[in-house]
Amino acid sequence: MPTEKEKMLAGALYNPADPEIKNLREKTHRLCRAYNNAVTDDDKEALLQQFLPKQGSGLYIEPPFFCDYGENIYAGNDVYFNYNCVILDSATVTIGHNCLFGPSVQIYTPLHPMQAAERNTAIEYARPVTIGNNVWVGGNATILPGVTIGNNCVIGAGSVVTKDIPANSLAVGNPARVIRHIEQ
Amino acid sequence: MPTEKEKMLAGALYNPADPEIKNLREKTHRLCRAYNNAVTDDDKEALLQQFLPKQGSGLYIEPPFFCDYGENIYAGNDVYFNYNCVILDSATVTIGHNCLFGPSVQIYTPLHPMQAAERNTAIEYARPVTIGNNVWVGGNATILPGVTIGNNCVIGAGSVVTKDIPANSLAVGNPARVIRHIEQ
Amino acid sequence: MPTEKEKMLAGALYNPADPEIKNLREKTHRLCRAYNNAVTDDDKEALLQQFLPKQGSGLYIEPPFFCDYGENIYAGNDVYFNYNCVILDSATVTIGHNCLFGPSVQIYTPLHPMQAAERNTAIEYARPVTIGNNVWVGGNATILPGVTIGNNCVIGAGSVVTKDIPANSLAVGNPARVIRHIEQ
Repeated sequence: MPTEKEKMLAGALYNPADPEIKNLREKTHRLCRAYNNAVTDDDKEALLQQFLPKQGSGLYIEPPFFCDYGENIYAGNDVYFNYNCVILDSATVTIGHNCLFGPSVQIYTPLHPMQAAERNTAIEYARPVTIGNNVWVGGNATILPGVTIGNNCVIGAGSVVTKDIPANSLAVGNPARVIRHIEQ
Repeated sequence: MPTEKEKMLAGALYNPADPEIKNLREKTHRLCRAYNNAVTDDDKEALLQQFLPKQGSGLYIEPPFFCDYGENIYAGNDVYFNYNCVILDSATVTIGHNCLFGPSVQIYTPLHPMQAAERNTAIEYARPVTIGNNVWVGGNATILPGVTIGNNCVIGAGSVVTKDIPANSLAVGNPARVIRHIEQ
Repeated sequence: MPTEKEKMLAGALYNPADPEIKNLREKTHRLCRAYNNAVTDDDKEALLQQFLPKQGSGLYIEPPFFCDYGENIYAGNDVYFNYNCVILDSATVTIGHNCLFGPSVQIYTPLHPMQAAERNTAIEYARPVTIGNNVWVGGNATILPGVTIGNNCVIGAGSVVTKDIPANSLAVGNPARVIRHIEQ
């Protein structure tokens, strides 16, 4: 029988108050907070390796940064997050190489049931987010559960990305729509 | 003659620099900051009771959290706020039971005059926000002064809620519009 | 030959990893963090003067606040920022007198090339933001590089301002559009 954590990663309904999940989340929150308060580059680097173990080289995150588990975030080489970004990584969040995230970008994977009676049981489920290589996400953009953004895309600041964005697109607005193909 | 604080709560024009109001706001800011820096669950719980005295059971707020007065926020049972939420509670903010708020949700009650000359006098006024039972507000949504959201609603991430939302609605966008009735 | 910092301020392509620029940015980040953690009004005031030297009288910023250089921000008299505002000031950000910024307002000046190959070289460029006198910017609004907002404007909460807004306008939405002329 799968554990709640296994269900979470498999996209099935799970209980976020399950002790294994809750302990991991609280541990990651403590490490994020330590990162956000760290002063030296060495301390920051060591903490980043601890709570984001699946990173390539050249990851840089301006504090504060907030995420739930850390171990479900896969980041390629040369990924940059500006201040105040939030990643809710109940499902995997996969980020390619050479990606830039402006300040206050929000990446979400968890979802709650639409019907109140079911939602009030506290069960939830999650859908992965996938971001290709060479993507620039403008500040204060929100990326919703299940979204895939293709290679070389640019997402306008303040956009709300509710659906997949094909490679080489400039997408803006709420909901985000492709307004231009970017020749490479 | 009403005090500035009484005017604030009555929806009349008031001076936010009034000492009684300012002292309460600064006290609440200090308690919020202490909450945001607290380490143990006991410390967090004690602080939460201090600056949000009108809460039901089962309130959980992921730090950081920001509010102005605290005493004007009424929260039912089993209310959850994710990281980085902001509540400007110059008027009352009433939240029902079983409500979920994603990260970076903004709830505002204060308003400034539209005409510059009047606005520059620093007077302002406030309108209450009311959120029913069993409401899920997606992350980075903004709820404007005077809005009422009915029972069992779901507000999409990144939405800007400028008008009342009837019960059992899914509302999304900027401005938020009802796109679906949710059967319960 | 111009330095990278001179290129940055001139709106030319520049390298944000240049040591002069990077050192200034890191120094400002340290001062912002000190401001965000300061307890007494005297400490806050002294720090504000240090990292925002080009301010008029009556500047008030609710912490936390985040900016990159500080010295490129020109603020008139009686300017107020609520919590969690972000200013990326690679180009100048000029703010008039009597301006109010709600919580979580984002003001950006840097831009990256649209083509991935060029963007991956890490060069970027910046465009100034200019905000007139007596402007109220609602919470969670995002103001994009190159934008000018005229005197006496009101920008709705959650708006994304992508183009210039003429004086005496109420503008709302994503992208922000003028929906009313405000008689003064």
